[in-house]
Amino acid sequence: MDGVILTPLKQIHHPKGDVFHAMKKSDVGFEGFGEAYFSTIHQGDIKGWKKHTKMTLNLVVPFGAIEFVVWDEKAFFSVILSPENYQRLTVCAGLWVAFRGVGKNNMLLNLASLEHDPNEAINQALESIPYAW
Amino acid sequence: MDGVILTPLKQIHHPKGDVFHAMKKSDVGFEGFGEAYFSTIHQGDIKGWKKHTKMTLNLVVPFGAIEFVVWDEKAFFSVILSPENYQRLTVCAGLWVAFRGVGKNNMLLNLASLEHDPNEAINQALESIPYAW
Repeated sequence: MDGVILTPLKQIHHPKGDVFHAMKKSDVGFEGFGEAYFSTIHQGDIKGWKKHTKMTLNLVVPFGAIEFVVWDEKAFFSVILSPENYQRLTVCAGLWVAFRGVGKNNMLLNLASLEHDPNEAINQALESIPYAW
Repeated sequence: MDGVILTPLKQIHHPKGDVFHAMKKSDVGFEGFGEAYFSTIHQGDIKGWKKHTKMTLNLVVPFGAIEFVVWDEKAFFSVILSPENYQRLTVCAGLWVAFRGVGKNNMLLNLASLEHDPNEAINQALESIPYAW
């Protein structure tokens, strides 16, 4: 889907505890740093839909498992990210996004290109976009 | 200690899963974005000592509990970060850092001001700096 990039990330084994890459400023999909935050999502719950009008999202799941669904008003893109399928999901501005907690405890890191600004995002009720969750 | 900043961070309650702030580009301690990575540390294990000569570290612990110790060659600074003591630890270049896993499963996020460069950091054996772990 245009505006969606999946980038495999390295997990580096260390006997005292592994290191998981998230993003370098030279990586594909990096559009500047505005803010980093974590979002947790309980098993079975869904947050969405939200469309950012300016912000690029870069999403990584360091624990648990989260299904992300992107809708471009024509088709759906979906992927389940987790430490077992450890990739970064880049979502450009203008696309609708929702995500569902798949594991028991789930957390994403969003490395957003802009600081949070409620006027920059549009929300729509979950039921308003017919995805077969 | 000079070059060390502790900044309380917001945890925003949400019925589907909380949001934890990590860093905004306008925050105190932000010196540019180079790379974000996660490091896990097993309970009782210690990683360190390492001194970055150019990189500013911004450390957040989204789960578990980790004791960070900073040494400026005169004195020690220490703090245990966790979701219960949810703060960001900024460590400027030139300081020695080590950290110990306190909880059962522990993970930190480092929002580093530079991309990883092994020539930019100096390592020293754990025993070489006499901190009473």
